[in-house]
Amino acid sequence: MSETVYELEQEFLAYVKRKEALNEALNLVYWDIRTGIPKKGATARSLVIEVLAEDIFKLEVSEEMAAFIAALTPHKDELNEVSRKTLEECSRLYERNKKIPAKEFAAYSKLVADAETVWGEARAQNDFSKFASYLTDIVAMKRKFIEYWGYDANKYDTLLDQYEPGMTVEILDNVFNKLRTGITDLRQKMKQGVTPDAAPLKVNLAKEIQKTFSERVLKKMGFDFEAGRLDDTIHPFAIGLNRGDVRITTRYDEANFKMAVFGIIHEGGHAIYEQNFDPKLAGTPLSEGASMGIHESQSLFYEIILGSSFAFWKSNYKDLALLSKPAFDDVSLEDFYRATNISESSLIRIEADILTYPLHIMIRYELEKALMNGELEVADLQEAWADKYESYLGIRPEKDSEGVLQDIHWAGGDFGYFPSYALGLIYASQFFHTMKQEIPNLDQVIASDDYTEIREWLTKNVHQYGKLKKPLEILQDTTGESLNPDYLLDLLKERYAFVYKLES
Amino acid sequence: MSETVYELEQEFLAYVKRKEALNEALNLVYWDIRTGIPKKGATARSLVIEVLAEDIFKLEVSEEMAAFIAALTPHKDELNEVSRKTLEECSRLYERNKKIPAKEFAAYSKLVADAETVWGEARAQNDFSKFASYLTDIVAMKRKFIEYWGYDANKYDTLLDQYEPGMTVEILDNVFNKLRTGITDLRQKMKQGVTPDAAPLKVNLAKEIQKTFSERVLKKMGFDFEAGRLDDTIHPFAIGLNRGDVRITTRYDEANFKMAVFGIIHEGGHAIYEQNFDPKLAGTPLSEGASMGIHESQSLFYEIILGSSFAFWKSNYKDLALLSKPAFDDVSLEDFYRATNISESSLIRIEADILTYPLHIMIRYELEKALMNGELEVADLQEAWADKYESYLGIRPEKDSEGVLQDIHWAGGDFGYFPSYALGLIYASQFFHTMKQEIPNLDQVIASDDYTEIREWLTKNVHQYGKLKKPLEILQDTTGESLNPDYLLDLLKERYAFVYKLES
Repeated sequence: MSETVYELEQEFLAYVKRKEALNEALNLVYWDIRTGIPKKGATARSLVIEVLAEDIFKLEVSEEMAAFIAALTPHKDELNEVSRKTLEECSRLYERNKKIPAKEFAAYSKLVADAETVWGEARAQNDFSKFASYLTDIVAMKRKFIEYWGYDANKYDTLLDQYEPGMTVEILDNVFNKLRTGITDLRQKMKQGVTPDAAPLKVNLAKEIQKTFSERVLKKMGFDFEAGRLDDTIHPFAIGLNRGDVRITTRYDEANFKMAVFGIIHEGGHAIYEQNFDPKLAGTPLSEGASMGIHESQSLFYEIILGSSFAFWKSNYKDLALLSKPAFDDVSLEDFYRATNISESSLIRIEADILTYPLHIMIRYELEKALMNGELEVADLQEAWADKYESYLGIRPEKDSEGVLQDIHWAGGDFGYFPSYALGLIYASQFFHTMKQEIPNLDQVIASDDYTEIREWLTKNVHQYGKLKKPLEILQDTTGESLNPDYLLDLLKERYAFVYKLES
Repeated sequence: MSETVYELEQEFLAYVKRKEALNEALNLVYWDIRTGIPKKGATARSLVIEVLAEDIFKLEVSEEMAAFIAALTPHKDELNEVSRKTLEECSRLYERNKKIPAKEFAAYSKLVADAETVWGEARAQNDFSKFASYLTDIVAMKRKFIEYWGYDANKYDTLLDQYEPGMTVEILDNVFNKLRTGITDLRQKMKQGVTPDAAPLKVNLAKEIQKTFSERVLKKMGFDFEAGRLDDTIHPFAIGLNRGDVRITTRYDEANFKMAVFGIIHEGGHAIYEQNFDPKLAGTPLSEGASMGIHESQSLFYEIILGSSFAFWKSNYKDLALLSKPAFDDVSLEDFYRATNISESSLIRIEADILTYPLHIMIRYELEKALMNGELEVADLQEAWADKYESYLGIRPEKDSEGVLQDIHWAGGDFGYFPSYALGLIYASQFFHTMKQEIPNLDQVIASDDYTEIREWLTKNVHQYGKLKKPLEILQDTTGESLNPDYLLDLLKERYAFVYKLES
């Protein structure tokens, strides 16, 4: 590498580092708004968000950035891996942003900002018609953007790729079909089984008990409290400021301890991912999850694969029962465990159990795909939504707030995002399958007080890479397979056979 | 005003608003670092500070800013008051920054950053010689900067003016001399009095008791918890993000409740000031305290004038005693009150009582003045410091950490700052004198459970103006007088006559 290329590379990295620093400030503002901002401070704070977001955007599409890309791309192969992938990521963002005319992008930003407000009002009033015209405009603009960005096999692929690089409709159609059939068959079989009694969960647990228990679990999982913190909020989330400062939040309901306990395990999985990025990625856009789906695979691994397994509760139930005395004095481990895994059709995605959850996602996926390909119009969306729920889950929403208006995603223009949730579950099951082969006594580890081996396995195969690898690359390198829903289906079959006492 | 001037004014205000938004983000980063940042997140966060501070600085000295100043200044009189004063403030900052060659300013920034680290080490090792060469360089650069900035009567005036616009050596020499004589005479007299027994303060109070009590006092003072919050920290401070979000922090010592209780009242005074800026100043550099001294006048008004008065404890001691039961069961109000007001010579400024505190300030003021005017060199500073302490307070430091190394200010290049602390006390006493005339039953208000009248008086005369008025303008408009230490002396005489049972 010539002296000049080296110097340019260093300048480029310094430039990118400044951008990441502004991003860190912006994330702190977000965290603060959702945890502790005084009521009267919030209005002015929204300008702070606006200014930081604009400054970050400017750095992404500046002439300086264009010059870096133009000068360094011909020397890509001379750069080290981190610089090269950083350059690729910056080019990808630059191209994506530059292809949309500035005026149209500004109009779009304004539209989604307004739409989110209107969506909130429409949902509160259970009236989709109030929101429909906004959604129509958003869909029209998204369709136009797809034309600007370009597409190959399917227009929706272009959107999928933004959240899940490399993912396509072809892959998803195939995988979701298999999954849907498998889940539907299992649900059919479960009708013959024994539905667990939900009574063991109907206890009141003080916030302090829930918190103490969850913090112990977090520590066992490998969450580093010197590199993160846990706070209260209304809508739980995880946010990484830098790998030494990854924050999670939760909400406590004394009448429903499941919410906070599983919520903390879930967000903890996100946080442990970010705490274990390779330090060499710091200050670059690679210091992020590989994709939304891979990020979700880490939270769901901890929440569903590990934290909802019988082996996990073998050791942890004792601790919870002791802390909660006498709430669980008369509840056996098995009854407790079966109660936490009840499955039933429901209308609200975020309240769904893990067996029905993928069906909620498939419904959204199919509607989005049809909308983007012009096979469905917003005018027919409400009906199409209800029909899908009836066909997949056997229930039909009676109110828009329980139907088409329940999620904020479309109001924000986030088409292509939903599949990541289901993909996370599929990835996690595939990782678990390989992990079992590589850690032969895995069940004993899960039933023990020390999950170090698990965390280390995840770091070695997933965490450390951040955005250095694409999602399907991580999957292939780790499991030797491409996307495959069979392992998730196997896990669901095994778990629900136990919970619903199915005959094999 | 012509259409063009109006448009330019709007552009200028929008530009300034962006700068203030970045400042708000920076302040949030500072708050977070000092309250809750996870240990491992701090190193990366320092880059965030650097980037934000640089971006703010760039906006202050940009060509765009120069163009605004050049184009709007000729039309100053056509602008409304807020725009005009904003322009003046921006010009002042622009001039100050532009007069220093960029290279020298960068060298200076690096020097003070290094010097603060070295100061910390030198203080820990009680070894001024380790720090002396850094201080010598800082003094040399400050002297050079004064030449760049220019000066009139006294070189030190230039530095004073940066913290306390309009303040001069001529004014201060006169006021401090009077104050010193008055304090020295009073201290002499007190030797004939009865020193209070400190025993009532030697109780252990749980953090929760201290917090509950202090929060009640804060509420009575007028601190708006919907526009602020109170958190734990190591070094207490107040920080305003915007007028709807002003945060204070404190440290609790169960063996010394005075620290947190009076600390919270003090920081609460700062916060109430910022919560009551006129909303029309939001998003401009006028949404700040008029000066360091005026800011301190508000914290000290609440801590010293109100919170250390007998009338205040008449109503509040009952509440504290009840919360702390049985700690104060055998302590009378008068004994409690006298114990909280013991005065004695001490070496450490921040631990000094209110009677000796101004002497600590005068010592620093005189040393700084001599250093900046070339009448004292760093080589002789240690000795000069000790001599002054001996002459003013009758005690001589034996360790550098208790002497010349105790404060961080000089390591940070902050010459000209110290006088503000004493000025705050003088201003506060002058405000109090006028307040007594305008609220005739003031003593009863202080002894009551409702301080609304006091807070409203301060808002009307001080808070609302932010930086719209200069400190001496606020003083003159409110009290009809210029700087006058007599009211502080009167207050001290009256208070210590009571506390030390002096014969009149």
